[in-house]
Amino acid sequence: MTARIDRLRARLDDLGAAGFLVSNPTNVRYLTGFQSSNAYLVVTPERAVVSTDFRYLEAARALEGVEVLESERDMAGWIAPRLSELAGGPVAFEADNVTVASHDSLSGGGAELVPTTGVLTGIRAVKDPEELDAIRAAAAILSAAYEALAEHGLVGHTELEIVWFLEQTMREAGAEAAAFDAIVGAGAHGAVPHHHPDDTRIGSNELVVVDAGARVHGYNSDCTRTFATGPLPEELERAYAVTKEAQEAGLGAVRAGLNGKDAHDTAAQVIRDAGFGELSHGLGHGLGLDVHELPVLREGVDMTLEPRNVVTVEPGIYLAGKAGVRIEDLVIVTDSEPEILTTFTKDLVTVG
Amino acid sequence: MTARIDRLRARLDDLGAAGFLVSNPTNVRYLTGFQSSNAYLVVTPERAVVSTDFRYLEAARALEGVEVLESERDMAGWIAPRLSELAGGPVAFEADNVTVASHDSLSGGGAELVPTTGVLTGIRAVKDPEELDAIRAAAAILSAAYEALAEHGLVGHTELEIVWFLEQTMREAGAEAAAFDAIVGAGAHGAVPHHHPDDTRIGSNELVVVDAGARVHGYNSDCTRTFATGPLPEELERAYAVTKEAQEAGLGAVRAGLNGKDAHDTAAQVIRDAGFGELSHGLGHGLGLDVHELPVLREGVDMTLEPRNVVTVEPGIYLAGKAGVRIEDLVIVTDSEPEILTTFTKDLVTVG
Repeated sequence: MTARIDRLRARLDDLGAAGFLVSNPTNVRYLTGFQSSNAYLVVTPERAVVSTDFRYLEAARALEGVEVLESERDMAGWIAPRLSELAGGPVAFEADNVTVASHDSLSGGGAELVPTTGVLTGIRAVKDPEELDAIRAAAAILSAAYEALAEHGLVGHTELEIVWFLEQTMREAGAEAAAFDAIVGAGAHGAVPHHHPDDTRIGSNELVVVDAGARVHGYNSDCTRTFATGPLPEELERAYAVTKEAQEAGLGAVRAGLNGKDAHDTAAQVIRDAGFGELSHGLGHGLGLDVHELPVLREGVDMTLEPRNVVTVEPGIYLAGKAGVRIEDLVIVTDSEPEILTTFTKDLVTVG
Repeated sequence: MTARIDRLRARLDDLGAAGFLVSNPTNVRYLTGFQSSNAYLVVTPERAVVSTDFRYLEAARALEGVEVLESERDMAGWIAPRLSELAGGPVAFEADNVTVASHDSLSGGGAELVPTTGVLTGIRAVKDPEELDAIRAAAAILSAAYEALAEHGLVGHTELEIVWFLEQTMREAGAEAAAFDAIVGAGAHGAVPHHHPDDTRIGSNELVVVDAGARVHGYNSDCTRTFATGPLPEELERAYAVTKEAQEAGLGAVRAGLNGKDAHDTAAQVIRDAGFGELSHGLGHGLGLDVHELPVLREGVDMTLEPRNVVTVEPGIYLAGKAGVRIEDLVIVTDSEPEILTTFTKDLVTVG
């Protein structure tokens, strides 16, 4: 954790700040291991100080490498008059996390406040080995859940039953939670990328989009596969084949030094050339403690990939009123081929 | 939903605002039924306008009683130049939700922005009949899960296994999710009110604090019971009896027109008089779409209870290094006795 805090310390000069007030709970966890809904972390060149109220104090005191102060529940109001002394100069804060009301409280303490955005999300985009191990474990549990689902069957079950089957399977295998509410979109529901699963029973001869994730030690995984529930019309078979081709083309363009938008374009071009129109969402996104992190692989977003980025590659074809196909892998970016963490086959699997 | 929006409209004059920009996703859901991680609602005397990006557009268009505008993903940047025209005057916003960065974007649009806090949380504190029904349903599933747990047993299971048993039981019974990560604190772990359950195996002759909740239609329930796993030392038996007495005293002080802090004091006095020191946390909290809402029942917080508030009543005794006891009911405030929704017995139940 000290190495992570040091990466933040290295940014202070550029920010013109003597200290950094971390308020985003996920960023506090990333830097200290501390999980609390009410904690601030102040990082200076010399110190790392966690403030939290009595409810979390015992857990905070078990942390290594940080000082702990007991605060009141009103964290911003409590820390405001202490901020100048803690930091000894201007204090950078997370402008995309601190609310207007908290900022008013903080301002009242007299410290000079320096708004920043994206500092921690930038640092978090490159994973360290412990993080990669957790994500690999979360992906392994997820891949096994897809194997179990293919055995379990789809036809006659409701979308929500499949969601619950996946979650149970992952939890029994050691996931601490589902990474997000899984999407199960059968038939025409598959054409809505963010479909909310419901009590619709899955029929035969449909495509079923299944997008799920597992969480291990706070780290998420994310994978989509699209199953057939019997022989399909030719258009749907072709949509599947094109999506798979686009996904593999996208994977081929995911490499350190290349740009996320170019990977997007590479996959989108395959879909376009096949006559299925435009890829209607980003090709992929970073993932770690949050399900959506940096970098993003999206049209027009200029973001160079780095080794140890962890990203999804997930093109889709959506045929309104008919069906959808999406195929998504979770991968670690390297200097050569990406390490693919989601191992369930990408061939079209028919499940009864 | 229109009645809820009208309650917000009725506040505009007092706020000196021509419109209200609702950004908190839970408040957007409360007022419109719309669930999205990226939606704003603008309420004026004449209009209710939901803005959301293409991912949620189809769902938004299925809403009744609101207009829908397609926005970009950067909601604040998109709506900023449109706010003045939408509202036709100063726009109230949620200062405890809008971040400093979003506020900067909104300010750039030229509308006069009026910071507010607590407007929607105040409105949400009084539930309407549909909300009460959902909470009753969530509490019934939870009460049944406690019955199932007493049958299932505790000794020899880990805390996390019990967490998972409860969640499975609630989900199979129709809960859409656990309301929060359940707390199972065995032995000395029970002395930490917010203990994170772990792989500790539950032994005999311990107290086990179990604090769980279910969610139905977005509405949460919350209940704590403390079980014995065999005969206990007299001190623990006495701590249980005193907690139960304090809980019942607290319930007796929960009534429309009375004050939350007085209910807290009533329960705390029972614990103090019995020689178990001070109640170390608030007696209770409101609950609804969020697990912690208004009103709060806490020392020094002046809050008059109203009919159709939904609150917990949950005193505890925490004996560091030994054990904890907490007994929590979820109740609806009325003009007379509260309606108790959590029906599992409060007598000390011994579970093997």
